[in-house]
Amino acid sequence: MVKVAVDAMGGDNAPAEVIKGSVRAVNEDNRIHVVLVGKEAVIQEQLQQYTYDKERITVVHAEEEITNEEAPVMAVRRKKDSSIVKAMTLVKNNEADAFVSAGSTGAVLVGAQLIVGRLPGVERPPLAPLLPTAKGVTLLIDCGANVDARSSHLVQFAKMGSVYMEHVIGIKNPRVAIVNIGAEEEKGNALVKETFPLLKNCNEINFIGSIEAREIPAGYADVVVCEAFVGNVILKLYEGMAKTLIGKIKEGMMSTFRSKLGALLVKPALKETLKDLDSSQFGGAPMLGLKGLVVKSHGNSKSDEIKNSILQCISFKEQNINERIKDSISVNEA
Amino acid sequence: MVKVAVDAMGGDNAPAEVIKGSVRAVNEDNRIHVVLVGKEAVIQEQLQQYTYDKERITVVHAEEEITNEEAPVMAVRRKKDSSIVKAMTLVKNNEADAFVSAGSTGAVLVGAQLIVGRLPGVERPPLAPLLPTAKGVTLLIDCGANVDARSSHLVQFAKMGSVYMEHVIGIKNPRVAIVNIGAEEEKGNALVKETFPLLKNCNEINFIGSIEAREIPAGYADVVVCEAFVGNVILKLYEGMAKTLIGKIKEGMMSTFRSKLGALLVKPALKETLKDLDSSQFGGAPMLGLKGLVVKSHGNSKSDEIKNSILQCISFKEQNINERIKDSISVNEA
Repeated sequence: MVKVAVDAMGGDNAPAEVIKGSVRAVNEDNRIHVVLVGKEAVIQEQLQQYTYDKERITVVHAEEEITNEEAPVMAVRRKKDSSIVKAMTLVKNNEADAFVSAGSTGAVLVGAQLIVGRLPGVERPPLAPLLPTAKGVTLLIDCGANVDARSSHLVQFAKMGSVYMEHVIGIKNPRVAIVNIGAEEEKGNALVKETFPLLKNCNEINFIGSIEAREIPAGYADVVVCEAFVGNVILKLYEGMAKTLIGKIKEGMMSTFRSKLGALLVKPALKETLKDLDSSQFGGAPMLGLKGLVVKSHGNSKSDEIKNSILQCISFKEQNINERIKDSISVNEA
Repeated sequence: MVKVAVDAMGGDNAPAEVIKGSVRAVNEDNRIHVVLVGKEAVIQEQLQQYTYDKERITVVHAEEEITNEEAPVMAVRRKKDSSIVKAMTLVKNNEADAFVSAGSTGAVLVGAQLIVGRLPGVERPPLAPLLPTAKGVTLLIDCGANVDARSSHLVQFAKMGSVYMEHVIGIKNPRVAIVNIGAEEEKGNALVKETFPLLKNCNEINFIGSIEAREIPAGYADVVVCEAFVGNVILKLYEGMAKTLIGKIKEGMMSTFRSKLGALLVKPALKETLKDLDSSQFGGAPMLGLKGLVVKSHGNSKSDEIKNSILQCISFKEQNINERIKDSISVNEA
């Protein structure tokens, strides 16, 4: 059984979509036990409308909530009775294996470090979303947890990302690349120039060199390593470009009578293709290197993404990802 | 008359497309005089197939070429008889107002600094391409000339970018934003946190605060300021995402009989819309802050982009952009 603490109050569509996603996860896979953390009365009222195995959804009451507007460190320190702090405390005390939240990213990142805590040897735990590509999926690591990282952090990200892609996503010998502004080894900023030879000398990963941002959507690497500021820019531009381009295409299709007719005909096929590029299919971004698993879902998650965020915790636990990460990091230290 | 030195040998489609683009520019606007720099015999042979005002295209012979594979600094220093070095020397000696090249980016950036030289007061000359957005166009500054820049450089980029957008593109009081990983002032890496208050205190620009990468394609700012590594990632991901998404959409449209039929009907309207998102319509990226203008076109430029790169030199000269940049920088220094 995999026990997942879920922040019932976090996200733009909480609690309704969060609770719906939790019920769907439990109904889809009988290895899942969800602990919904938040205002008990609200949660119980929502739960009444669903049919599910009552033994596999429990509720832990939390009186407070942390909003996106609050300063994360302060909020995590002060609001001991918030859904985020209480749920993370369950993970810390081994009463849950994982934590899923669509709430304040800042509070989740801070709580992960302060409450759940890092695995021995891990310098900085990265946030690592999966990006859809033309060929499947790529892990972007780090996308926002540690700005101004050092080269040793990036090497650990490469190792943790490799473990995740191989054992959770099932890609044998995943190709690791570092984001750079040219393909040649001498290109880059100071951080990349320092990190490149370290990655090259890393025997436990399949380092293929630099990747230019242009090649990420084409799927040229399985693990894309970068400092968090750059990763955050990549993640958000990915989302922004997709939205703008699809908007423009819809606008084009609606511009003439002839194109409107054509749009009706291409719509079903196009919907199917664009689904491949929808990142919610993967669930939220895992934060790696912690004593437990923390998954950060998008703030605007619907039940689908919440469900997928919960389900990804199964292979994380069954594949002993944290043990594997500890092993790979200790090789690094040796 | 605006005299533009063109690197006839630079780019994947040189010399044919470069020469075709030059002829088209001369035929489209009678203020343009092009000096084609490169192997004279090759150039003259290509020119024979076109009709144009012979007084407005001249040829300067250059025996050598600089390739993408050569180390830029070394190549610029050694190959005195290359098309890039000779054309830039024309600009330096005021025998040409501007230089356009689709050749080695590294050599163009190095040559711009070593041969053309910086305007007084300019610390670092940025490369600033125009990006298509849902609402029109945005200047991304810097996108690759100066990695690991300092905050004072970014402030100058903001000023130079504002001058360019206002007087070349014609956007009154352009909105300037700095690329960041969140909207709040306290967010960001060390460089952004240091630069933010400097931009806020800059009276000559219309600073609107941080921009998340997600909002760039939507067109939320006219001048998007960032350090070159980040800018390069944005520019290349912009291109890569567009290519992958359009590829996926075409694939979807070709997947069923019904959708193929629909594709025939939507094609003309879609082509029209996607043209808005084609960056070649703007010509290449200007490098600002130099004694003269240097425009870097894409390596794979066709005649269209070369023509547009040449034509943008007109408003650059007529609007006295360099005088305006000098003025805006000196305000900075005061």
